Amino acid sequence: MPIVEDIPESRVRIACLQMRPEWGAVATNVSRSVGLIAAAAAAGATIVVLPELCSTGYVFASRDEAFAVAEELPHGSTAVAWIEAARRHRVIVVAGIAERADNRLYNAALIAGPEGPIGIYRKNHLWGAEALFFEPGNLGFPVFHTAAGRLAVAICYDLWFPETFRMAALQGADLLCVPTNWVPMAAQSDSLPAMANILMMAGAHSNSLFVAAADRVGVERDQAFVGRSLIVDCAGWPAAGPAGADAEEMIVADVNLADARRKRRWNDFNQILRDRRTDLYDEMLGTGLKRGWY
Amino acid sequence: MPIVEDIPESRVRIACLQMRPEWGAVATNVSRSVGLIAAAAAAGATIVVLPELCSTGYVFASRDEAFAVAEELPHGSTAVAWIEAARRHRVIVVAGIAERADNRLYNAALIAGPEGPIGIYRKNHLWGAEALFFEPGNLGFPVFHTAAGRLAVAICYDLWFPETFRMAALQGADLLCVPTNWVPMAAQSDSLPAMANILMMAGAHSNSLFVAAADRVGVERDQAFVGRSLIVDCAGWPAAGPAGADAEEMIVADVNLADARRKRRWNDFNQILRDRRTDLYDEMLGTGLKRGWY
Repeated sequence: MPIVEDIPESRVRIACLQMRPEWGAVATNVSRSVGLIAAAAAAGATIVVLPELCSTGYVFASRDEAFAVAEELPHGSTAVAWIEAARRHRVIVVAGIAERADNRLYNAALIAGPEGPIGIYRKNHLWGAEALFFEPGNLGFPVFHTAAGRLAVAICYDLWFPETFRMAALQGADLLCVPTNWVPMAAQSDSLPAMANILMMAGAHSNSLFVAAADRVGVERDQAFVGRSLIVDCAGWPAAGPAGADAEEMIVADVNLADARRKRRWNDFNQILRDRRTDLYDEMLGTGLKRGWY
Repeated sequence: MPIVEDIPESRVRIACLQMRPEWGAVATNVSRSVGLIAAAAAAGATIVVLPELCSTGYVFASRDEAFAVAEELPHGSTAVAWIEAARRHRVIVVAGIAERADNRLYNAALIAGPEGPIGIYRKNHLWGAEALFFEPGNLGFPVFHTAAGRLAVAICYDLWFPETFRMAALQGADLLCVPTNWVPMAAQSDSLPAMANILMMAGAHSNSLFVAAADRVGVERDQAFVGRSLIVDCAGWPAAGPAGADAEEMIVADVNLADARRKRRWNDFNQILRDRRTDLYDEMLGTGLKRGWY
């Protein structure tokens, strides 16, 4: 009798909110994001992901500009609004924000749930001119144990590093939530998925990890963003999306987060994380590499 | 003046030979593979990749069966034939073979060139019942410095581990050659690339590394193989293929291997390998992990 299969286990409804923030209009963006969270909750979502820097916009021309809109966590007005929305709608919210801490700025994400703030993630791999405004993340790859399951967070360029998925999965994450602001890639073909989506699919598949990315759309100071928000299952296949390239859109997927753990086993011999040949990886991927050349 | 751009640098023509070996018919398979190498050379190829275990077939029912067709390297008759073909046609050949060494069996690849044998790769990540017949690879992830450029080798399930691409790229490889025997994946969609192809694209893109995979086709003892041989450029996009799922086929791509090194730089701030946060990866991806739980 299929007893185990009848148990609900860790079923969640994930919503990714693809939105178009207005640069510098924090109050407007936060108000709109709170409305979108309410809409996602009304659609039954239990985990809601919003884009990178969705309260401020992305393209800063100076550190002053970034500093002016950055907020302390979790006490700034944006964080307070998101925490209140998470509490009111009884959802987990993962949303990108410009964080200020001791005059250091981070490209960060706030994680909040029905019981209040859960944690902070700070983008570890900074892209382009972000290096002029933000500090590289210094919190590692935290995995947050929530009532819904184990969540990790990555932001945009973090996905270009397979280590990001590995660090999340090896610490037990079931779901990687990805606030992002993807920009166009060279040589992108219309007949193939966006490279950012391909990286998600590969990372999900080779780690048996759900991945949910909320991108932004629109153009900001001549910088275009590509949309294509996507939720992939733990086998690496799309569960919802990709969203379109131009419009605001909510994508929603129902998944059983427990599958991430169970499906790491392929057959009698293979379990994707235990098959790693750490005996062969150490020298180059571990500390030895700090002295490497490349 | 664009002086550098006019230099041929490291231009090579890569051919992947998708073939259908006949189980156990070593002499026939080797003779046919030598003919295919000649055809690839006649088409101007300078690097030729053949499938995993292409001289023997893949599905062994016992260790005895595997042992009976395995050969010592580089002195067995298959290796001698491939080495002679590489010498005669002045190409680099990378081909999958069952290797016997001190009564140990390896799922291996022979690398040979115009000057003779270059090296051996032994599959590090064994799939399924391979664990009953073969030893896990014990040669690490060697990078072979050839006249054509720096080549690394991976076999099939090795691609499921992003560490394989990383180990190759961090040691300077320009091209990862992949003899493979891909089997069908669950939930594969007709509208999306094969998951094996997606893993190649992601690995190539996030390491700026060319990847050339030669798969087999056909059915062997009820085990189907999926074809879809593919050559991807160092940005992760297809340069040739994917080949079809059912027929023997040669795919050919002209690439400049020097691009792998140059294009690791994205912009003034980012170089894909140097951006790695080894300070954050060490604990989980290095030696610490041997004592981890997952």
